[in-house]
Amino acid sequence: MNKPHIVILGAGYGGMMAAAKMQKMIHPNEATITLVNKHDYHYQTTWLHENAAGTLHHDRSKIDIKEVIDRNRIKLILDEVVSIKREEKRVKFKNRDLYYDILIVSLGFEPATYGIPGLSEFAYSIKDINSARLIRERVEYNFALYTNEKKSKDGRLNIVIGGGGLTGVEFAGELINHIPTICKEYDIEKNLVKVFLLEGKDCVLSGYDESAVQYAMNSLQSRGVEIINDAVVKACTEDGIIYEKAGSEYKILSKSVIWTAGTKANSIVERLNLSMDHGRVKVRNDLRSIEDDSIYLIGDCSLHYDQNGNVLPSTAQIAMQQGEFIARNINAKIKGKEMTDFLPDISGMITSLGKDDGIAEIFNRILFGWKAAVLKRFADNWYLFKLGGIQLLMKKGKFNIFH
Amino acid sequence: MNKPHIVILGAGYGGMMAAAKMQKMIHPNEATITLVNKHDYHYQTTWLHENAAGTLHHDRSKIDIKEVIDRNRIKLILDEVVSIKREEKRVKFKNRDLYYDILIVSLGFEPATYGIPGLSEFAYSIKDINSARLIRERVEYNFALYTNEKKSKDGRLNIVIGGGGLTGVEFAGELINHIPTICKEYDIEKNLVKVFLLEGKDCVLSGYDESAVQYAMNSLQSRGVEIINDAVVKACTEDGIIYEKAGSEYKILSKSVIWTAGTKANSIVERLNLSMDHGRVKVRNDLRSIEDDSIYLIGDCSLHYDQNGNVLPSTAQIAMQQGEFIARNINAKIKGKEMTDFLPDISGMITSLGKDDGIAEIFNRILFGWKAAVLKRFADNWYLFKLGGIQLLMKKGKFNIFH
Repeated sequence: MNKPHIVILGAGYGGMMAAAKMQKMIHPNEATITLVNKHDYHYQTTWLHENAAGTLHHDRSKIDIKEVIDRNRIKLILDEVVSIKREEKRVKFKNRDLYYDILIVSLGFEPATYGIPGLSEFAYSIKDINSARLIRERVEYNFALYTNEKKSKDGRLNIVIGGGGLTGVEFAGELINHIPTICKEYDIEKNLVKVFLLEGKDCVLSGYDESAVQYAMNSLQSRGVEIINDAVVKACTEDGIIYEKAGSEYKILSKSVIWTAGTKANSIVERLNLSMDHGRVKVRNDLRSIEDDSIYLIGDCSLHYDQNGNVLPSTAQIAMQQGEFIARNINAKIKGKEMTDFLPDISGMITSLGKDDGIAEIFNRILFGWKAAVLKRFADNWYLFKLGGIQLLMKKGKFNIFH
Repeated sequence: MNKPHIVILGAGYGGMMAAAKMQKMIHPNEATITLVNKHDYHYQTTWLHENAAGTLHHDRSKIDIKEVIDRNRIKLILDEVVSIKREEKRVKFKNRDLYYDILIVSLGFEPATYGIPGLSEFAYSIKDINSARLIRERVEYNFALYTNEKKSKDGRLNIVIGGGGLTGVEFAGELINHIPTICKEYDIEKNLVKVFLLEGKDCVLSGYDESAVQYAMNSLQSRGVEIINDAVVKACTEDGIIYEKAGSEYKILSKSVIWTAGTKANSIVERLNLSMDHGRVKVRNDLRSIEDDSIYLIGDCSLHYDQNGNVLPSTAQIAMQQGEFIARNINAKIKGKEMTDFLPDISGMITSLGKDDGIAEIFNRILFGWKAAVLKRFADNWYLFKLGGIQLLMKKGKFNIFH
């Protein structure tokens, strides 16, 4: 093998962590490393619900890639993937083509709409900085319109969140806290605004312990979120959302439907002609695709099973671990050593419910309220420290822990 | 005459000034005075273009009526006029009826669209706090949408201002200054944004001296506003505006058309069955309507001619003078004295072109640039002082005179 060309697609949690670790392990004499990303920034996907709700400015969630990447070690290219030609080991971008020896696909997720009519046209998703900012603006625009309308205003102030998983619940918690501020800005009475959270299963946050779920529901409901369980979404229209519950069909009028109920891998990987399941590409224990030795998939693009045969969740935690792991493994491969198997280390789950509130299951304990919220900030700060050291932590960390 | 009931409709420049002066002149034993307004705030109509552009928060333009009105002297009612029954001397509001002996109609203006198709559906107007805020949000919403669109984005970042009069020019001047800030917020390249100013006549700011017009055009054009004179607007559509120039028809694609080319009296007065012209009610020299001795009309509702037979402009300056005048005249009438005739005192015109820039014609002099801008702030502050004394001036004045 000549000096190999390692191409990393996407600077999300997985890709950034892989690049940050590789630049320390792999010498430019050993391999050429290129990181390609659409924007010049990495962003905190786990903070996007705050940007969408308007409680945290999106600039806080952005991290300049150049602050993390040593460009003497890694070439940074801003471009957008069009397609991957596996047989030629070539990636076609909008403005160039690149040949690779080793390809790390960390292109993240897209919202999964499961073929439900109208969702892709009329619903909004929290998937990146642009879409999170759009949700904030969509809500504000509707509030601004409201005081200018003389005719029917049905549903203009209803906000519907489709999906009571992590993102839906976290977004609901932030949004409901922010409603009084938005109401003040637009001269609207608070009690005219309604926030609905629709969940298809019989409870939100499935996977969490019953007591944590109860805590979360109480927390949201006491602040005014209307949670509707067993609500199977049938369609989204220009003026609202239609769902079925216990055999009857209901419609909630709304101009702001936010769909958070599920993700799949970036659609680029669907056209790779590799084995897939659950909308993601199946990988071997070393995170290579089953059919192609040169392609590694991490984060939301990759489908991996743990020791018990369960699908690993699509979380930032796993993506980061996979990024670190793959850096070590590719370093080993380049240096002629054995590659190892990925062993996920899931220490727990932490879910924010808004400012100073949350739930967590960690080290077999369940935490509620401010303790969970503090833990979440700690985890966020820990990531920043691992990615960019003390400097990045100081610049982008969340330190308002007790205020 | 028993103790008369004076009802003031609308707390704009005219109504507020009338109320503020009357409460000092007329004792509660002499007359009952009621001020009815839709909102609990008065607003600086002459600052709305800044609220719409996003350079000044709308809260800065609001003045709490209760801060100006002495409620031991004047009863303040929040309600909306539905109709005026002249023969019964009764005003029907949404939530009540009131009988009057003297009625002061100061209900302000509405945009005049001259029957041009589509303007009332698709164009936005700067007419009050709500509509100014909506324009700000409309522009921001379109900018937020832009970075989320994959298909045609034609015109999403074009902003068209219809009308090169005072409001259109002042709005253009503020908006073009604010574009870099909005672009930064929404990650958009500045040169993708276009601001058009369409004027039907052969030059903007008609009425101003040629040198002032040239200065204003240079100022706007040098900052990127595209001024199109002799552009007769034919229609507004969901996706833009159509105009005719020199026999040809043109279309500018835009999702944000702001119509500033003309005003008429609040449509409530159209149904009064009084003599009208130019969309306003003709008044006698003492500002009573020609047909009805009990009804006084001031500000944008009233059509008055100066000594030379010219129609008085529809400006804040005139409205305030009429408010003061009418307070004095009604006070005279109540005390059994002679009423006098209104003599407008037009000291000049001042037009802002954005931060620290403007033009003014005053005391037969023409001023440009920062001198005009300072003068404009001085005039704004003078109004606040007259309305609410030193306290209101300190609270709401514009004091950032030199930067």
